[in-house]
Amino acid sequence: MLLCDIGNTHFHFWSNGKVTHLLPRSLHRRMFNEEIYYISVNPENEKILTKTFKTTYDLESIIDLPTEYMGLGVDRKAACLCVRDGVIIDAGTAITVDVMSGGRHQGGYILPGFNEMIGAYGRISPLLVGGINFTYEPKELPLNTKDSITYGMLKSIILTIQNTIGSKKAYFTGGDGKYLAKFFAQAIYDETMVFRGMRISIERALEKRRRAQSVQELEEAPMDLDWE
Amino acid sequence: MLLCDIGNTHFHFWSNGKVTHLLPRSLHRRMFNEEIYYISVNPENEKILTKTFKTTYDLESIIDLPTEYMGLGVDRKAACLCVRDGVIIDAGTAITVDVMSGGRHQGGYILPGFNEMIGAYGRISPLLVGGINFTYEPKELPLNTKDSITYGMLKSIILTIQNTIGSKKAYFTGGDGKYLAKFFAQAIYDETMVFRGMRISIERALEKRRRAQSVQELEEAPMDLDWE
Repeated sequence: MLLCDIGNTHFHFWSNGKVTHLLPRSLHRRMFNEEIYYISVNPENEKILTKTFKTTYDLESIIDLPTEYMGLGVDRKAACLCVRDGVIIDAGTAITVDVMSGGRHQGGYILPGFNEMIGAYGRISPLLVGGINFTYEPKELPLNTKDSITYGMLKSIILTIQNTIGSKKAYFTGGDGKYLAKFFAQAIYDETMVFRGMRISIERALEKRRRAQSVQELEEAPMDLDWE
Repeated sequence: MLLCDIGNTHFHFWSNGKVTHLLPRSLHRRMFNEEIYYISVNPENEKILTKTFKTTYDLESIIDLPTEYMGLGVDRKAACLCVRDGVIIDAGTAITVDVMSGGRHQGGYILPGFNEMIGAYGRISPLLVGGINFTYEPKELPLNTKDSITYGMLKSIILTIQNTIGSKKAYFTGGDGKYLAKFFAQAIYDETMVFRGMRISIERALEKRRRAQSVQELEEAPMDLDWE
């Protein structure tokens, strides 16, 4: 089965447990022959996928997460479906943070991703362009510009997520998830969370169809077999 | 006396305790007749000031703050000069956070300002454009996109600054300083901090000159008046 998670920057493909990240310009008609089951948060990129490949199926309608959140992104829903209790952090173009409790989504929020934060600094002043030091640990107060940008970016993201996690379990995914997870004790990193959520949804939809078929078979059976 | 603090976006003028904020395109030759004492963090805007007005003096060389920080912005130095012990938060295009202890600068860091953060969200996805709710209090977990952006932006800024403040005193300045100060108990807001620092520096420079003159006068006096 070939799955695709269409983000704002990349197309993420899953095939037999292997994940590939592609930019829109890298997609090519002959790349895949099989049917593609996808979810998308970006209509423009979605169009690129459906025009490039012959057979594509949007899974959005079967990604079903109990929540009161209005307009929750389908990728966030999918990732949350993998967790009964805990915090799900998807660090990509945006960093989304969602809380699950007893299998119900409790709410969540959005932070700009690392690349967007770096871009924001660069737009403030030429002095703040390209100033991130990814080996830096934001502990002591910074004493130069590069560290002061890195500290600001990392500390604000880490403290906010830590405040949400508290004593809960934390599950990281997304392109920057592995790097970000390092700052948290007991963090669990899984690159495939969104895809696992898509597969859970497919299983549930198939199970539902099987049940519906069974009921239909029962209904078509002689009356004395009505078990009600 | 007319003072000017040249930022990355605005020119901030101080005259007799009154502060005016102007965009570069709003500056006009006939606006001021007097001498302008300025500091600048933006060479391009500095050029606009010195070309528009006849007599301008750069105060940078007399803004003297004890620190080990390499490349600390002159506006941050000026604001820090007003505080012996405490945290100074200047919320403008960038949000700078600096710590003073016993009259010495201990270090500091930079966060993107509100406008840059809002822009960063908008660049991630059209769904996240213009989504800030400035009356929102980031307490409960958000249940819609607008609140989830506001929560992410405010909570990340507030928690980071709170982490630095601890039990110290906090002094807020800058265009968004008044709004930001509302989230902190015992916050002190002063729009004129950078200008107060400039005036402290001028006073000190004048005092130094007076002393140098006195020494010169003493040196030129008859030998029996040498008090050493």
